[in-house]
Amino acid sequence: MNDTWLDKVNWPQDGLIPAVAQEAGSGRVLMLAWMNREALRKTAETGEAHYWSRSRRKLWHKGGDSGHVQKVRSVRLDCDEDVVLIEVEQQGGIACHTGRHSCFFQVLQGGNWIAADPVLRAPSEIYRK
Amino acid sequence: MNDTWLDKVNWPQDGLIPAVAQEAGSGRVLMLAWMNREALRKTAETGEAHYWSRSRRKLWHKGGDSGHVQKVRSVRLDCDEDVVLIEVEQQGGIACHTGRHSCFFQVLQGGNWIAADPVLRAPSEIYRK
Repeated sequence: MNDTWLDKVNWPQDGLIPAVAQEAGSGRVLMLAWMNREALRKTAETGEAHYWSRSRRKLWHKGGDSGHVQKVRSVRLDCDEDVVLIEVEQQGGIACHTGRHSCFFQVLQGGNWIAADPVLRAPSEIYRK
Repeated sequence: MNDTWLDKVNWPQDGLIPAVAQEAGSGRVLMLAWMNREALRKTAETGEAHYWSRSRRKLWHKGGDSGHVQKVRSVRLDCDEDVVLIEVEQQGGIACHTGRHSCFFQVLQGGNWIAADPVLRAPSEIYRK
């Protein structure tokens, strides 16, 4: 592939666009992370989700440490061309670093955020060396 | 409600967090827009999605002009507490200003973005006075 498709993206000044990961089959929204040009390119080229880690300030191959790789089925771009939506198969069934299926596990109920989804595996088990 | 739940959000320096709207039933991701504190408060209080329009620099009641209001069924917050996911009933079945169901209508295929979803209603009809 040449880079025309990457040029079509409206990269903002900081070079980062939001990327929403949605699970194939279940339709669950698993997480939102950020992609720079290199992360989006790697995602498309390797078929595995890559993000830009804002906290670690480096390219982040999702699941590189945990094994919870996201296999990419499709990549979509929105009307303003500054957000992508990727459809993924979530390896291990866990997207969140807390050990939950989805990062969106807190639900607003009666004026409070309630942790509504179970921890499927302890983070200490996921990230042990 | 008091404001404790709003204080729990990790508001970034510019005051804006990404908000992903997902359609109840279909599970389709319809759009991503931005919320400031006031937009999130209004969304929860009125049960209709409110965003912060970055281009118009004002609070934006989604569907206020088009009639394509989003009725909010649930509001979720992610693990880092800086992204929300709202589950909505999309009035009129059109979320995108191009007249499509979802804003994510461009799919990456063979190194090109392909407009894969049909225009359901012409924007000139949606936004006529």
